[in-house]
This record gives sequence, C-alpha cells and structure tokens, in this order.
Amino acid sequence: MSLKVKIASRYSHVTLNLWASCKALADKYAKVNLGLGAPDYNPPVELSKALTSVLEDAISDCKISAATHQYAPLVGHPELISALADVYTTEMSHKIRPEDGCLSVGIGAQGCIFNVINALVNPGDEVVIIDPHYDCYPSMVQAVGAKPVFVPLLPPKSSTDGATSVNANDWQWDRYQLDSVFSQRTKLLVLNSPQNPLGKVYNRDELLVLAELCQKYDVVCLSDEVYEWMVLTDSGERLRMATMPGMWDRTITVGSAGKCFNITGWRVGWCVGPAALISHVVTVQSEVVFSVASPLQAAIGRVFRSELNNIKGKDDSCLAKLRSHVKANRDLAVVELSRMGLSCVIPSGGWFMLVPVAPRLLPLLRDTSASKGPASDVSIVELITKKFRLATIPASMFYSEEFRCTVGHGYLRLCLNKRRETLVEGLKLLEAALAAADALAASS
Amino acid sequence: MSLKVKIASRYSHVTLNLWASCKALADKYAKVNLGLGAPDYNPPVELSKALTSVLEDAISDCKISAATHQYAPLVGHPELISALADVYTTEMSHKIRPEDGCLSVGIGAQGCIFNVINALVNPGDEVVIIDPHYDCYPSMVQAVGAKPVFVPLLPPKSSTDGATSVNANDWQWDRYQLDSVFSQRTKLLVLNSPQNPLGKVYNRDELLVLAELCQKYDVVCLSDEVYEWMVLTDSGERLRMATMPGMWDRTITVGSAGKCFNITGWRVGWCVGPAALISHVVTVQSEVVFSVASPLQAAIGRVFRSELNNIKGKDDSCLAKLRSHVKANRDLAVVELSRMGLSCVIPSGGWFMLVPVAPRLLPLLRDTSASKGPASDVSIVELITKKFRLATIPASMFYSEEFRCTVGHGYLRLCLNKRRETLVEGLKLLEAALAAADALAASS
Repeated sequence: MSLKVKIASRYSHVTLNLWASCKALADKYAKVNLGLGAPDYNPPVELSKALTSVLEDAISDCKISAATHQYAPLVGHPELISALADVYTTEMSHKIRPEDGCLSVGIGAQGCIFNVINALVNPGDEVVIIDPHYDCYPSMVQAVGAKPVFVPLLPPKSSTDGATSVNANDWQWDRYQLDSVFSQRTKLLVLNSPQNPLGKVYNRDELLVLAELCQKYDVVCLSDEVYEWMVLTDSGERLRMATMPGMWDRTITVGSAGKCFNITGWRVGWCVGPAALISHVVTVQSEVVFSVASPLQAAIGRVFRSELNNIKGKDDSCLAKLRSHVKANRDLAVVELSRMGLSCVIPSGGWFMLVPVAPRLLPLLRDTSASKGPASDVSIVELITKKFRLATIPASMFYSEEFRCTVGHGYLRLCLNKRRETLVEGLKLLEAALAAADALAASS
Repeated sequence: MSLKVKIASRYSHVTLNLWASCKALADKYAKVNLGLGAPDYNPPVELSKALTSVLEDAISDCKISAATHQYAPLVGHPELISALADVYTTEMSHKIRPEDGCLSVGIGAQGCIFNVINALVNPGDEVVIIDPHYDCYPSMVQAVGAKPVFVPLLPPKSSTDGATSVNANDWQWDRYQLDSVFSQRTKLLVLNSPQNPLGKVYNRDELLVLAELCQKYDVVCLSDEVYEWMVLTDSGERLRMATMPGMWDRTITVGSAGKCFNITGWRVGWCVGPAALISHVVTVQSEVVFSVASPLQAAIGRVFRSELNNIKGKDDSCLAKLRSHVKANRDLAVVELSRMGLSCVIPSGGWFMLVPVAPRLLPLLRDTSASKGPASDVSIVELITKKFRLATIPASMFYSEEFRCTVGHGYLRLCLNKRRETLVEGLKLLEAALAAADALAASS
C-alpha cells in the first residue's frame, strides 16, 4: 500500500512535464539535438588539466588537500574568489577585493538566482520579469509566495510577416507597458543580458531606463549575465547593469562557469554585488547547500587566472575561442535559413537563436491529429522530432501565460553552441521538414 | 550611499554568528582543530584516481564527455545512480533498480535534507526533531513556515556526576515526552542515526517505537544516515529505519559521499526512498539547483562500484579502512580522557564525541570576565581556543533553546576523524587546560 503525499504547496505549480517530454522525445527519436542548451563537444582541455593539477597538488600537500577535498569556505574557494575579484574589478570598473564580501559562489547560476530570490523577496512582493525569460525565474518567485509580473519584448513591426530576419536587439518593450509593471510593490527586477532564448543584448539607453525605474521604486536588480562572454557583435562589448549610474549598490550580477567554459555539468556560478546584499545571499546559501564543490571551484579559479589577459582583449584564450565558434555558427545558420526561405531572430549574444517556423510548417500539423491550439510550436517540435528526427525547444516555454499566445507564438529555439557538423546536419533535417510542408501546401 | 535591504523574513532567524565566531577563533588561535567536522588528512587515493579516470575517458569519447562535463540528469549521473541502486538493494533488502525513481542525488546531505523539507512540509506543519540535532534541521523547518518540536535524549541517571563515562546508546528519550510531541499536526520526523554530535546508534526497539508513531500519525521519516558506514560497534551492524515494518513507503534515507569517503568538499549526497516521495524531492531539486556536479558524481559512482564487496563484509575497502581509523581514534580518546580524569560519552557511531568538561574547567572561567550564563560551554570553547590553542565546538549549539540549558549543557564536541597525531596533540592541549583549571581550583 503506497503512501500518497502531495508535494508541498509552495511547489505545487511546478510541472516537469513539458521539459521532460521534450527530453524524452529527443532521447527516443532525435538524430540531431539542437534543443538541449549544452555543447556536444569537449570543453577546452584547460579545464580538465586544471582539475588534474588541483588533484595532484592535493596529494603532496596537506593544506591543499583540505582546501581541495573538504568544505570550501561558505563564500567560495579562495582560488576562485581571488580570480573572480580580479576579473570583475576590470569588468565593472569597481575595485573588488576577495575579502570585501562582494562575491559568493553558488551551485551554478540557477543556485545563485535561487539564493538571491530567497534572500530578498518576501511573500506579497512583486518581481518584474521580461518576456521571453529563462523559465526558472517566475517559478522561484511563485515558490516564495511573491508575484511575477511580466513585460514582453515585442518584435519590430516590420518583421511581423515572418519572412524578414530581424536583429534580436530590435525587439523592444512598449515603454508604457514597462512603466506600468513597476510599483511600490516591486522588490526585484530580473534582467537577463544577453537574453536566453532571444539573444538580445541590452544597449546603454535601455539599461538606463531600467536603472531609473529601479531607483525610482527602490528595486534591486538581479542581472543574470551568464552569457557575458558570449556577446556576438563585432566589438563584443559587454555592458553591465552594475556599472550604470547609481546601480552598483542595488545590483547583483550572476555569472556561470558552465556558460563561460562549456561545462554546464560542473554546477559552479557566482554572485557579484555590494556586500550588504551579498551577505544575505551567503546566509541563504548556508542554509540551502552550505558550500560548493571545492575541487571544481579551485580548477575554475586557475583557468580564470590564466584567462585574465583575454578580458583585456587578447584572442588566444578559451573565452575568445568559444565566442568565435558560436559566432561562426550563428553566421552560418543565418545564411542557411535564408537560403531555405526562413527568417530568424539574429542573436547579438548567447547560445540560442529563435526561428519563426510556424507559418511554413503548419501544413504538416494540419496533416496530423496534433493540437491546433495556440501553443502550436509545441506540436511542431513534437512533429519534427518524431518525423524528421530534429530536436528543438518550443519558444512558448519561455513565455508567461499572459504573452505566450500573442508574442511568444510559433518560434523554435535552436542551440548554436554545437559542433559545426551538428548544426549543419540539424539544419538539413529542418530543410527536409520544410520541403515536406511546402509539398503539402502546394497539393492542397 | 549604501542600500539597506533586510534579508527576507523566511531567513531572518538565521545567525551565522556562532559558527562563524568559532571558525574565526579557530583560524586565529588554534594549533589543533578538533572542532571542524572534516578530516585533516588525504581522502583515499581511490577518489582522485576515479576522478582522473573520468576526465581521461571524457577526452577520447564524445558521449562520455557530455556525461562528464554537461548537465547530469536531474535524478543523478547514471554511473552513481546505478552503483547506489546496487548498494541500497543490499542494504535495505529492497530491490532498487536505477529506473525505479527511488534515488535522487543532491548537493551533499544538506542539499538533500533541504529538498525533502521543502518538498513535504507546509506552513503550519510540525516536524519532530530529536535533541541534540544537526543544526540545519530546525532552521530549514522554520524557513518553510513550519514548527520544529523537540524531544531530548537524556543521559542515564548514573552519569549525572559527570565523572563516569557512558555509552551514547544509553542516552534515551522519556517515552511520555516522545509521545507528547507527535500529533495530527506532525508531518515529518527527522531521525539521525548514527547521531551527530552524540554518537548514538538507535537500536531495533527504539526504531520500532518511532516507526509505530510515524504510522499512527501518518508521518514521513527523514532518516539522515550520513554516518551509515561509521558504526563503531564491533559488529558494525547498520539498522535502517526504511527496513522496519511498514516504513519503506514513508521513509526517505539520506546519504553522503562526503561522509562515506572523507570528501566533505565534493558536495554529493543522495536520497533513497519510495518513488512517490522521491519524485517530489526531484521536483524541488529541479527548482533549487537543477543537477549536481557530473564529474564528481561519476567518480563517486566508480568508487562505490568497487566498494560493493565491502558491503558484503570485506575489510580491504575504503569504507572499512576509514571506519577502523575512526574507531581506533575513539578508543584512544576514551583511554586518554579517562587517564586525565575526564569522562566522555562513548560514541557507537559517527565522527564525534561529547566530553563533559564544564565542571572541571569552570575555575578557568571564574578567573576571566567571560560570561557565566547557562551556555558556558561557549565561553569554555572560546577560552581553550584562545589560551590553550585547542579548537572545539560547544555542544549547546546542537540543542534547541528549550533543552540547551538543561540537557545540552557543558559538553564539548570533539571530531575523531583526524590524523592520530592531531588527536593526540589536541588531547594534550586539553590536558594542559585541565591542569591549569585544577591548579586554580586547588589554590582557591
């Protein structure tokens, strides 16, 4: 007789179903997976080498052994904290010393975001989230009894035919709509730049607008900048909310070793911000997981230490090489999609690209018994995974219910951080799906 | 002008101060640290070897690379899950297959305990905790808006003179007191066996009493068994709550690679239990941190795979060797403390030993301006760290406020999982403190 226990109310809104079903479909049917947001090639060998060196040092030295294999300090391993302090001193034009309490290492960016939301948001508070968004934000906000309020980025009017590619940066909010979501109830703004899945990198004017609203309503900004070294513009310039006037004191910037170095499975991320806020983050961390894997932190610290030159503009670093790889893949995808007569949203940063496939692929859906409801990108993903063996993610999963059926409708998300051959093969499968759809459309 | 933001109300009860001040004192003054619950010697070389082999395999094989460096499945890395399934099938006399949904890997035991409490406990629920307890339990319960209720283990009456050593197993609850903390409001019982810091290993009769209460009041048992392979009795027999009649379906057992293999800094733990409960744990995990470090999970899986023989009674394994080491240290400490005229609570399991030092060391306190309040073990710890350079932890930190000043008064916690020389040196420092106290007592 099996016990029936409901999940606690704070998590009753969580459904693993849609992500799980995308994954199950991909595992079962896909020949090429452009859905999963993780590279399918080896991370830079520097990472394994650094980890091996950390392990070797530990064998011969008792103190290094303790630092490598036993609990790391709550705020983070000294080798990582020290490297991050130097990295962000340069990046944020703000002197950060390891002992200042401005850094906190967490379990990936997600663990850091969880800590920040749990440290700062009370039941009844409101949190502003920009659509499309990484799906953990509103779910974490709901779990603490607060209310996520959404404002969508809108595609430029010229692109509504779906035939013309646009730059992700041309997706913009309606200023009236943006103003209307801020109020005295707003506790936190979650910003994500470069933005997953859209690929938008916010410009200075946009950051200044948000900065002004944060200061007007006394709001803290959680700036998720995990794709900070993946700005795909020619200059690669990184603009950071924390460097806008008046914003250092109210911004927590989140970074990710997984996204920096193609090691999504290492689960190491960090928060950078004023000690007054970071101390709360550390308190939550002490309750939730205590510390983060020591050997992995030490290894990442060593790699960052040797990457510091790149941050000053050198091109022979891991960070620069990974950026070049994704940039080349993006450029290839834009050309190939255009050749197939498909437009796309050209990303200025990050690992992803949105492709508006709904109009072209709908004939395939009409030919099946699949749902014709508004979230038809879900049906399209299912269909091309099963019939054409290409796995992708429906963009509607990155939208609030409020804007899912209007703005967030009919796009696939492709991951560009794959081997070039994987991307080419995936685009060929997409082309086969288009050809089948076109044939159906012509015959009807 | 620095921003003033309070920590969210759910964590306003957390104070890092006492632990942090113990650590700061130890870092500053201690020559020997018997406070910190982590070994000061290298973990078995098998761990580093396994991790190195995982990294090497990843370089040559694309699929292993993805499994090593990218997101692990939400429930855990296949190599670890498969090994744990075999380990606990033997341990729990319950067939567990990797695909059954009975296992979930988390960020150390603490991350697992956090997941369980957040998955099952609603605001207003009550959670039964046995004093003394690992300090994260009640804090996590409070953070979800529930109420921890405590029942103390009481020392045998014969030992109240503080001069006679007793076995930790002879500390027992008052049955009337135990019954009175269970009610229809009770959602969870947190059990810890072997128990930190006491060293008690619950016997079958005691487990049956708890099992009956759990079934009577429809309570789930969170059984924290992180010291499962550290039972220090001659037989080393491990009794598990999940194997008591009717308890498999309502028990989540928590384990820890850190405690198994002396790698507290790797942050890998797991939950074992019925799929109906574990599925909720996995849902919470998906929100809080997503997955756990892939390379570390894989390495631990490989070590467990090669340890499986030990579980059937072989003595040439890491688990058996570590147990022998701690057991020998315990036996040494009992003899040495007795020679110094100090009694102790002889642990039957775990890494720790409680030593009632208050009566003997009080003269030292009287000689200073230190607090003479009820939690004088805190003052004693401060004093012997500063003056005699021995760091320990005051046992009162493992007690609820309710029982801190009555039951949990005047003990130090010593960590036995140290190099033998460290323990010997630490005991010498304690002896010097005793000599100084005795001299003061004699002169007054």
